[in-house]
Amino acid sequence: MGMTMTQKILAAHAGLPEVKAGQLIEADLDLVLGNDITSPVAIHEMDKMKLKSVFNKDKIALVPDHFVPNKDIKSAEHCKCVREFAARHEITNYFEVGEMGIEHALLPESGLTVAGDVIIGADSHTCTYGALGAFSTGVGSTDMAAGMATGKAWFKVPSAIKFNLTGKLKPWVSGKDVILHIIGMIGVDGALYRSMEFSGEGVSSLTMDDRFTIANMAIEAGGKNGIFPVDDLARAYMKEHSKRDFVEYSADPDAEYDEVIDIDLSSLESTVSFPHLPENTHVVGTFDDIAIDQVVIGSCTNGRIDDLRCAAKILEGRHVKKGIRVIIIPATQKIYMQAIKEGLIETFIKAGAVVSTPTCGPCLGGYMGILASGEKCVSTTNRNFVGRMGAIDSEIYLASPAVAASSAITGKISKPSDLGL
Amino acid sequence: MGMTMTQKILAAHAGLPEVKAGQLIEADLDLVLGNDITSPVAIHEMDKMKLKSVFNKDKIALVPDHFVPNKDIKSAEHCKCVREFAARHEITNYFEVGEMGIEHALLPESGLTVAGDVIIGADSHTCTYGALGAFSTGVGSTDMAAGMATGKAWFKVPSAIKFNLTGKLKPWVSGKDVILHIIGMIGVDGALYRSMEFSGEGVSSLTMDDRFTIANMAIEAGGKNGIFPVDDLARAYMKEHSKRDFVEYSADPDAEYDEVIDIDLSSLESTVSFPHLPENTHVVGTFDDIAIDQVVIGSCTNGRIDDLRCAAKILEGRHVKKGIRVIIIPATQKIYMQAIKEGLIETFIKAGAVVSTPTCGPCLGGYMGILASGEKCVSTTNRNFVGRMGAIDSEIYLASPAVAASSAITGKISKPSDLGL
Repeated sequence: MGMTMTQKILAAHAGLPEVKAGQLIEADLDLVLGNDITSPVAIHEMDKMKLKSVFNKDKIALVPDHFVPNKDIKSAEHCKCVREFAARHEITNYFEVGEMGIEHALLPESGLTVAGDVIIGADSHTCTYGALGAFSTGVGSTDMAAGMATGKAWFKVPSAIKFNLTGKLKPWVSGKDVILHIIGMIGVDGALYRSMEFSGEGVSSLTMDDRFTIANMAIEAGGKNGIFPVDDLARAYMKEHSKRDFVEYSADPDAEYDEVIDIDLSSLESTVSFPHLPENTHVVGTFDDIAIDQVVIGSCTNGRIDDLRCAAKILEGRHVKKGIRVIIIPATQKIYMQAIKEGLIETFIKAGAVVSTPTCGPCLGGYMGILASGEKCVSTTNRNFVGRMGAIDSEIYLASPAVAASSAITGKISKPSDLGL
Repeated sequence: MGMTMTQKILAAHAGLPEVKAGQLIEADLDLVLGNDITSPVAIHEMDKMKLKSVFNKDKIALVPDHFVPNKDIKSAEHCKCVREFAARHEITNYFEVGEMGIEHALLPESGLTVAGDVIIGADSHTCTYGALGAFSTGVGSTDMAAGMATGKAWFKVPSAIKFNLTGKLKPWVSGKDVILHIIGMIGVDGALYRSMEFSGEGVSSLTMDDRFTIANMAIEAGGKNGIFPVDDLARAYMKEHSKRDFVEYSADPDAEYDEVIDIDLSSLESTVSFPHLPENTHVVGTFDDIAIDQVVIGSCTNGRIDDLRCAAKILEGRHVKKGIRVIIIPATQKIYMQAIKEGLIETFIKAGAVVSTPTCGPCLGGYMGILASGEKCVSTTNRNFVGRMGAIDSEIYLASPAVAASSAITGKISKPSDLGL
């Protein structure tokens, strides 16, 4: 019996000729990631375990991004803890305020994650790097601590669901709609501890930013990881951004999958997840008007340049509806700079949006756009759990940048065609 | 005995031919201002006093700027309170997220404050508009409530200190150095409940942004207000920004002053206020190295276009010292946009600074750059009180944008000449 793409990467990193679903293995890590919320916990765990050194100062990435620039004294202390740890261990890839961005946009852009890697990160959305053909997954801070010290982690080898993509997305439909559609179909535990392996001729039509978005939200279906085959587009991306060699793995022709799900990309429509679970998906246009208070465009899910370009196309020459707050957050400094060069930031400000420095901020109720009681927000982020973005009775509607920007103009959940686009 | 400039404005607004220092008067208000911290208190006070309507919906300005975009649920609820009040009373000058900026930069830029006005604002730095030849002063939320309802306020007519300015500032020395120098000279209560009236041939060499900065910090010397004569530069500024007619007042030749202080602008140097009072001033270059952790450039004091241009000149082609966080916050959306057009934001990001959407944020320990224990910050803001920007044992050094930007490059308190500029 052959191995899935994920299983082949794990086998290679465990030094084994073959692994099987359910097997416990210890794998070498190419990168261990932490942010300003999880790293301090991991650092204290290292202290408790009397782990005094790191396995490789070049293979740890510390990215303060959640509540940075510091939102309060507590977050300032957390960042200080990470900064001091980075200095003490001469961590190469510590990203200070000014160099930083949202971790899952920053690491691929910085060339730290490439195909064939095994990556753990103390953040749920570490699965993002699967877009490049890497195995990457979120872990707890204790695993991060052990990973930083030993360069290894234990895994139960996952089985997989294969998503066979065909066709091509319609205009204004994007990777976000693909992954919301999938989560709506299989549920938030539909891929529990399994790999979501994307394949099929439809993959080639997806942009890298589409793929990052799709892989990013694998965890929202419970997936252990999401992973894409390495094609010319992915190779070009890695060659542009990274100096590292990469290894391409692909699933064996006789790999076993728990399930094969066919998805015709051309059949997908603009999709929104209603409160309070990502699986509560509805196609825009099939429900009654929902008036909104705020729009957020950004996050590790949808704060990349394609996302901003899409939003700008819709906001260009239009104005945010009176009374709606629109908060746009480029995911990294490089994306911010690119957006300035392309005139996108001017478009946003002219349209009546605010543009913040990169931060996870509002996505997890941190700052920079917290909701009051009863308020409704259309957000390009990844989770719409109860109270995640503010008051316990506020509501988050997850959507693509196209839907978010269109909704900003109309003041209710809308898609570009509602604006005649 | 003649009247000071301030007294003449107050007399006219009280319908009296003449007023004297110490006299209690009731004056008509041209504008009543509140922000997201003070307006909710004022709104509740109106409710308690059963004041059901506002005196003039065009003469109230509500500017959520302190913790906006909302930093937490509490601030979200405060903003909601202000938003609903503004909608209920059809307040013309309510500034939503996206339209907003820091109140004291926004109002002059929006043409809402002009020479000859009497303005109260529930914010200490309301004295900023004195740069335009207006009487403006900070009040408590109860006075704001009464002002919104009646369009009137009680004042004790202030006596005055006259600052007779001569000469011209050296390169890289700015309005911030002027006002820090003055506060260092007279102390934080040196002008208690008195007008600080600026005059003399030196005024004409000060830019409008210099004057806004100087008037802005009158309160840090205890001043009731700071005020500048109306000259061609001020007239041009008001004609550019406002559609309103304005009335020019000037002090009577025989006006009485408590004190006349001569200041030769050409003798001033780059000045810094050490913790924990603005009066603790030192000339840069006259003290031992002080290593810093963070730089903030922004606020109602120094977030204007001249301030950003000055910082950009220093940061252009240079890079922030490793380990220093630099946070730059344009004071309004219009300034942000102008800074993008001029390439300043690109310069900042390339230099390793972050640029946030307009907010008071870090100045008052709100968010967007809070200090951890023991950290030191050079800041272009206006107050360096204990714990104002974060941890109780953090330290704030008040300075000009030139000093702040220079310090960002060297990592210690510096002036442009330390960089060979």
